[in-house]
Amino acid sequence: MQTLLTVAYDGTNYSGWQRQQNAIAVQQRLEEALSALLNQPITTKASSRTDAGVHALGQRVAFFTEKISIPMEKLPQVINGFLPKDIAVTAAEVVPDEFNPRFDAKYKTYNYNIYNASIPNPLINRYSVHIPQPIDVEAMENALSMFIGRHDFAAFMATGGSAKTTVREIYDFSVVRQPSGLITLSVTGNGFLYNMVRIMAGTMLYIGLGKLPSYAVSDIILSLDRTKAGKTMPPEGLTLHEVGYTTYRQME
Amino acid sequence: MQTLLTVAYDGTNYSGWQRQQNAIAVQQRLEEALSALLNQPITTKASSRTDAGVHALGQRVAFFTEKISIPMEKLPQVINGFLPKDIAVTAAEVVPDEFNPRFDAKYKTYNYNIYNASIPNPLINRYSVHIPQPIDVEAMENALSMFIGRHDFAAFMATGGSAKTTVREIYDFSVVRQPSGLITLSVTGNGFLYNMVRIMAGTMLYIGLGKLPSYAVSDIILSLDRTKAGKTMPPEGLTLHEVGYTTYRQME
Repeated sequence: MQTLLTVAYDGTNYSGWQRQQNAIAVQQRLEEALSALLNQPITTKASSRTDAGVHALGQRVAFFTEKISIPMEKLPQVINGFLPKDIAVTAAEVVPDEFNPRFDAKYKTYNYNIYNASIPNPLINRYSVHIPQPIDVEAMENALSMFIGRHDFAAFMATGGSAKTTVREIYDFSVVRQPSGLITLSVTGNGFLYNMVRIMAGTMLYIGLGKLPSYAVSDIILSLDRTKAGKTMPPEGLTLHEVGYTTYRQME
Repeated sequence: MQTLLTVAYDGTNYSGWQRQQNAIAVQQRLEEALSALLNQPITTKASSRTDAGVHALGQRVAFFTEKISIPMEKLPQVINGFLPKDIAVTAAEVVPDEFNPRFDAKYKTYNYNIYNASIPNPLINRYSVHIPQPIDVEAMENALSMFIGRHDFAAFMATGGSAKTTVREIYDFSVVRQPSGLITLSVTGNGFLYNMVRIMAGTMLYIGLGKLPSYAVSDIILSLDRTKAGKTMPPEGLTLHEVGYTTYRQME
């Protein structure tokens, strides 16, 4: 049988999702916990290979086993007893054997947090990037709609990406400033190129800082030129918020 | 001259505020940064000796120097360049030589965070205590007012406290549940005994879980008996929110 987990983690101390030599990945910790709990070697497949330092609230992870004796609704709590405090399984369900957590994903939502205050806050630092200069959120808002739709996002892909096509569809993109000074960019699409969200966030930041005009986004997309977009923002501001396996519907 | 800093820190990786042998304290890191920046050995005095693992947003810390050439309004940013990411100076001002950051404090506000959801959240874990059982916030609300006022809080002091008197005055005590599941207890008083806020939080939790009735608080206070109150809650839920040097006024 195949089981699909929803997994949350603080990525600060990990080399990313994917298991690798010489560094601790979230996948390794989770597979160790599952193997110890279920008393058989477990290999997992995730919906998204999050990078080093990137966080997740809604990563989805699937694995095959013989029938499990633990009831599905109890599984998260039981696995969490085998996991460090910075990783937690938040849900578990049985899925068909032919289900693939990566290729069956219909949409993914990522959040990027910018902490916009003159002085950094150590209780927010870990999950955001601190920008002391004033940010014009209205200028950012004016740029959002240019990302929506089906575009060739080659200008928003870091070198090292292995995608067959650089065309992606963005369903939704929003920016909210909270009274605390936290600015959250939230973007939903059918998939994202390597570092795409972090480059989108860097481009939006340039717009918020007045280094690029809002209307530049269309030209940057059309240029297909990485050097025209903003810088790649650091990983700690990024959280994989949700992966959806049904058609995306924008919330009213 | 004497300078008063406002200091924020993530206490997770520290043995508390106070410098000690064989463990890294926030005081040590801050004194190292100040000494390196100002090129003279600096000794600091804090308003509160926060315990290992306890966080701060508004710790106040004073130190003496010869005249400083850096303008006061630039000082936080400059010191932060010498500090690790989990400690930040958020404000600086000159105070009279006779000012004492501990004894001149008129009130202190502490927040205690409980994350009340069936499953833990690794992005909230670090600054809260996870309680999966349902918590009745209304029952907690009914108990709040019994803490307000001047009382002998001997029942709310851990052994090891060195206070001359166990009488303290509580000015304000509130509880708020956010949609995220985070329950924040916020308490303001003229001072707190050793572990007092964490024992108050443990007592409130017992009330929220139905292990104690709301009306028990008055009896517990009158008993002067530590064994009658709730357990001492863990440090990670606690944040020193503010220290005030003027008379406390409740916000409308």
